[in-house]
Amino acid sequence: MKVGIVGASGYSGEVLVKLLLSHPRVTLAAVTSRQHAGKPLSAVIPALRGTAADTLKFSGSDPAELAARTDIDLWFLALPHGAAADFAKALLPTGRKVIDLSADFRVADLATYEKYYGQHHAPELLPQTRFVLPELTDPSWMQSIKLAAAPGCYPTSTLVPLAPLLEAGLVTREHIVVNSFSGVSGAGRKVEETYLYVERAESAKAYGLVKHRHLAEIEEQLSLAAGAKVVIQFNPHLAPMRRGIITTITVPAAPDATLDGVYAAWRAAYAGRPFVSILPSGETPDSAYVTGTNRVDISALHDARTGNFVLTSAVDNLVKGASGQAVQIMNLWCGFPETSGLV
Amino acid sequence: MKVGIVGASGYSGEVLVKLLLSHPRVTLAAVTSRQHAGKPLSAVIPALRGTAADTLKFSGSDPAELAARTDIDLWFLALPHGAAADFAKALLPTGRKVIDLSADFRVADLATYEKYYGQHHAPELLPQTRFVLPELTDPSWMQSIKLAAAPGCYPTSTLVPLAPLLEAGLVTREHIVVNSFSGVSGAGRKVEETYLYVERAESAKAYGLVKHRHLAEIEEQLSLAAGAKVVIQFNPHLAPMRRGIITTITVPAAPDATLDGVYAAWRAAYAGRPFVSILPSGETPDSAYVTGTNRVDISALHDARTGNFVLTSAVDNLVKGASGQAVQIMNLWCGFPETSGLV
Amino acid sequence: MKVGIVGASGYSGEVLVKLLLSHPRVTLAAVTSRQHAGKPLSAVIPALRGTAADTLKFSGSDPAELAARTDIDLWFLALPHGAAADFAKALLPTGRKVIDLSADFRVADLATYEKYYGQHHAPELLPQTRFVLPELTDPSWMQSIKLAAAPGCYPTSTLVPLAPLLEAGLVTREHIVVNSFSGVSGAGRKVEETYLYVERAESAKAYGLVKHRHLAEIEEQLSLAAGAKVVIQFNPHLAPMRRGIITTITVPAAPDATLDGVYAAWRAAYAGRPFVSILPSGETPDSAYVTGTNRVDISALHDARTGNFVLTSAVDNLVKGASGQAVQIMNLWCGFPETSGLV
Amino acid sequence: MKVGIVGASGYSGEVLVKLLLSHPRVTLAAVTSRQHAGKPLSAVIPALRGTAADTLKFSGSDPAELAARTDIDLWFLALPHGAAADFAKALLPTGRKVIDLSADFRVADLATYEKYYGQHHAPELLPQTRFVLPELTDPSWMQSIKLAAAPGCYPTSTLVPLAPLLEAGLVTREHIVVNSFSGVSGAGRKVEETYLYVERAESAKAYGLVKHRHLAEIEEQLSLAAGAKVVIQFNPHLAPMRRGIITTITVPAAPDATLDGVYAAWRAAYAGRPFVSILPSGETPDSAYVTGTNRVDISALHDARTGNFVLTSAVDNLVKGASGQAVQIMNLWCGFPETSGLV
Repeated sequence: MKVGIVGASGYSGEVLVKLLLSHPRVTLAAVTSRQHAGKPLSAVIPALRGTAADTLKFSGSDPAELAARTDIDLWFLALPHGAAADFAKALLPTGRKVIDLSADFRVADLATYEKYYGQHHAPELLPQTRFVLPELTDPSWMQSIKLAAAPGCYPTSTLVPLAPLLEAGLVTREHIVVNSFSGVSGAGRKVEETYLYVERAESAKAYGLVKHRHLAEIEEQLSLAAGAKVVIQFNPHLAPMRRGIITTITVPAAPDATLDGVYAAWRAAYAGRPFVSILPSGETPDSAYVTGTNRVDISALHDARTGNFVLTSAVDNLVKGASGQAVQIMNLWCGFPETSGLV
Repeated sequence: MKVGIVGASGYSGEVLVKLLLSHPRVTLAAVTSRQHAGKPLSAVIPALRGTAADTLKFSGSDPAELAARTDIDLWFLALPHGAAADFAKALLPTGRKVIDLSADFRVADLATYEKYYGQHHAPELLPQTRFVLPELTDPSWMQSIKLAAAPGCYPTSTLVPLAPLLEAGLVTREHIVVNSFSGVSGAGRKVEETYLYVERAESAKAYGLVKHRHLAEIEEQLSLAAGAKVVIQFNPHLAPMRRGIITTITVPAAPDATLDGVYAAWRAAYAGRPFVSILPSGETPDSAYVTGTNRVDISALHDARTGNFVLTSAVDNLVKGASGQAVQIMNLWCGFPETSGLV
Repeated sequence: MKVGIVGASGYSGEVLVKLLLSHPRVTLAAVTSRQHAGKPLSAVIPALRGTAADTLKFSGSDPAELAARTDIDLWFLALPHGAAADFAKALLPTGRKVIDLSADFRVADLATYEKYYGQHHAPELLPQTRFVLPELTDPSWMQSIKLAAAPGCYPTSTLVPLAPLLEAGLVTREHIVVNSFSGVSGAGRKVEETYLYVERAESAKAYGLVKHRHLAEIEEQLSLAAGAKVVIQFNPHLAPMRRGIITTITVPAAPDATLDGVYAAWRAAYAGRPFVSILPSGETPDSAYVTGTNRVDISALHDARTGNFVLTSAVDNLVKGASGQAVQIMNLWCGFPETSGLV
Repeated sequence: MKVGIVGASGYSGEVLVKLLLSHPRVTLAAVTSRQHAGKPLSAVIPALRGTAADTLKFSGSDPAELAARTDIDLWFLALPHGAAADFAKALLPTGRKVIDLSADFRVADLATYEKYYGQHHAPELLPQTRFVLPELTDPSWMQSIKLAAAPGCYPTSTLVPLAPLLEAGLVTREHIVVNSFSGVSGAGRKVEETYLYVERAESAKAYGLVKHRHLAEIEEQLSLAAGAKVVIQFNPHLAPMRRGIITTITVPAAPDATLDGVYAAWRAAYAGRPFVSILPSGETPDSAYVTGTNRVDISALHDARTGNFVLTSAVDNLVKGASGQAVQIMNLWCGFPETSGLV
């Protein structure tokens, strides 16, 4: 099977190239980049020197030309929000599978999307698309859609620990506080003063408080899990590290809910799933331990003094929070083993 | 005036030495260390080469001998919890002022102290001591005590933004969630595997969830401010940086409370105080901007969707969170300008 | 084929476990650790959660017991210097292949070894062993030895750029200056104050000047390449990063030698070798680009003003500088593709 | 005395503002910035919140207007190379003292300057200017010039250990190899992809090999010290840290020269100088220990095997390597104590 990537010069694009080049079931046959067309991949991604990236070259990225390529069976879109929808318009009619790493199709409700992200470039495609977090989304998505929207790092690190508890009624829907601490690559390869080494090293700060755009998909998914509207406080922070994200969720326990109940709900939700590691209560996930893996590590505590559960999680924002998850989606969609190319 | 430091080989001890060596109103006349007695300070603190630390030597640290030194007017205790109380027992009867950087006398309620810290070594001294956060504690402490307990980094970064709001009734006492991210020096100079460079770089993780010991003094002070028992969820995290701490507090607004009210309460509480910087709503404190200063930067947002205030703060854990604050307490107690040696 | 690792709790041991668990041609059947015997690997190496490391357990590490295990075809020794020789004494008589990551058998000349490393624990084994840097060592080693000594990071980063030039007579043997900058994991997992996060972050310094022990094997190999005694100035430094090593070599050009000659010698030496990337003159290797790979990136410049060549190289100290190289040696020795399990 | 700074938005400009705001002998009365004119300093340099920087505002930076300000007694130029000369043309005729942090007037020989830096904007001013490294330059500069060119970090870290040895004939002029390892702020506040946090963290690499521009002033000063032309190999590297620079110099010992001779030469050259710390042989300077200080730490070893001396040094690139040194020059020029505002 041959796959292509549209837009691979960002950090998650790089990781996607790496994963697909070593994937045992697919051949990476096309990688597009407006900026780098004509160069070999390893000239732009030096970490890939000495691999097939020395000969594979970036091609141009005209939507119509890509749509005309009959050799590609599946396209990954590793593009900024907005641009992804433009390519989806060209590619979906060809019948090829599309996996989108942007937020363009993560939100089913158009009004919600536009409130957070601005005008949608292709709302007419929404019915053919779906937010797919493999461990949580009903597997029927494989038959019913043309484009799978891979969740990003904040949604993944929040939904994996929290969604099953809302679904099982073990926690309240009110007073949920989600604090996340993200490595700098989470912002993408933005050449701005605030992302300079000297500015970010030895610095931690909150950002995007109250109105962070990924609230759109996080709350929509939490509400689906709870069967009722869920509104959360989401406090993202920037940490002086390259990769990784940790999330700490404070949520009041429902009456009679217990820590054993939390673990039972998790074990039920994630039985047999290779990429969720449930740690014993008291052991907290460490971002360093998931770096380079497609794993989510989760753990929980109960605080008898406050009546809250405290849930913690860690993911690599570029793997399970982006490209690894996209490959996992491909594996499931194409009938490959779920872990193909990911361990 | 001559001052001495008991125990100066930890990170906050080093900073205290630096501050006192350049303080215009006092002479650092004694620095004790069991381990380094006889060595010049700059042999142990190479950052101080080329200063008076080249000639000043560590002396031994026998409590009785220190108590007998009549040349010292004020002692700083920069010791681990427990050891500080042992020295306080020897020094308080001499009538010298004592400023303690440990937690030994931060908690007025003995039962609370012992629940979190274990047996108290000198409970009989509690009536002569007091938790002193200069911007919040009633100035009458200067006349009424023999030992001032300087607050640590977590209490300072939490109390400065939150206490005035509880006192003014602008926030509820329930569902308060405090998330902090601390640099590694917050753990002190512990030679343990978990604090190795390779373990901590590129790593973020929660620790001490549910039962962190500094909850003892934080909640006692919050309860005093609120006039009623306050219980909080306190989630500390370790961040891959040397210094600095940021705190993000989510707290439900009281009915009718507004963001303007929050800022008005802060301005009232901190009018004329040189070390609290109130940032405009929307601008968040950055730990890098307070490094090396005795400042607390604070800011607030209101979230109309959740009904919460989100308060943020940043301090340098070794300065305003430890040694700088101790010097500030000395300045006030001895009638020096509050900012002496601190800007 | 089944392989075992003796001593896997250090940083290079961890990487070796990772590489062997995903190697397509071998099964990792034994991992020993005095300290962790009985625990599953993933309890000690959390990065491996969710893999076979959840079930594979550390076994004890008694040399006689290991020698008695008939199921293991090849042993890796990931032990401190000295300890490796003790195990080699037990394992070599069994006829199993042994690949040693320590320095115990890297130096053929016993007097040189003992000058730098102290008394040798098993000098009688030296004739059955050899320093093996796969790209430089004559392939006859595969038939002639029982134990291959894998070179460490400093030797690899120095020999790959320099040895072929000495062999081709393109550089002088005098006035060679080798400066290296190493990530902190190069020191191993030593729990000492100097390796604490707070000490090493934002810090760079030289160490081991004049008398660094790896001079023993570096100079022996350079002398072999030159056909005459070579003595170098070797200046190692500690850099505030977890992994990676870069080396910058200043060496006077031999009369008539040219930069083209340098590149021609390199291309001849490394033709068809998958793990040496020769960068164009003017492009310098970056440690970040080789992290996680088994590559050595090398480049060269000629300085007409000084008459020197300046050679630069980068390796991942834990992969090509340790465990990756050991796996590469295994691949060649066992007739597997050289890149098996390494790309 | 009133001083002004032209151009203070770079990293060394920030440090210069900090130093001058707390200097006991001068008032910082003007700070110019084209980009930030009208804003208070602390809006651009948040680390200075709560100080006089809250009220002092950036003014515009028109050369003629600055020349007309009669209240300023001394100007610092903290500008890029080239721009500094343009302001010097306006300011020198006014008779005010000028201290320039750029390289514009560091090189006395015009041809050398233009070979490395391009066309000089004000060669006619060269006779009124001088490279001033306070510990090495003959004190007659104070009477003979109108503009003092403060040396940068590479020259300072190289010249302080090396120049006295060349002057004393203790080392050869050939085969000198200078390796430096610089923190990222050494490149200034350049908003380029290569200086992003994600690119620089966990990365070390050489750059500017063979032809680095600061060779111009380094070699001119070394030649002056040696009394004959000196050509060196200068290998700068980028290290993943914010501040600090370490330099390791390999230089053949002259016949009969000894390590004692090196130390004697240093003690003679730096007797009574407060900012040079001579460490015992075997103890190597650490960049972390000089951060925030105006110190140069130096040390030396002799290698009997190679016949070389290995000299090491550390400076804070933003203090002794830039702004601290400029303040030190001011102190000497204006008759203040050399350490005023610097300890």
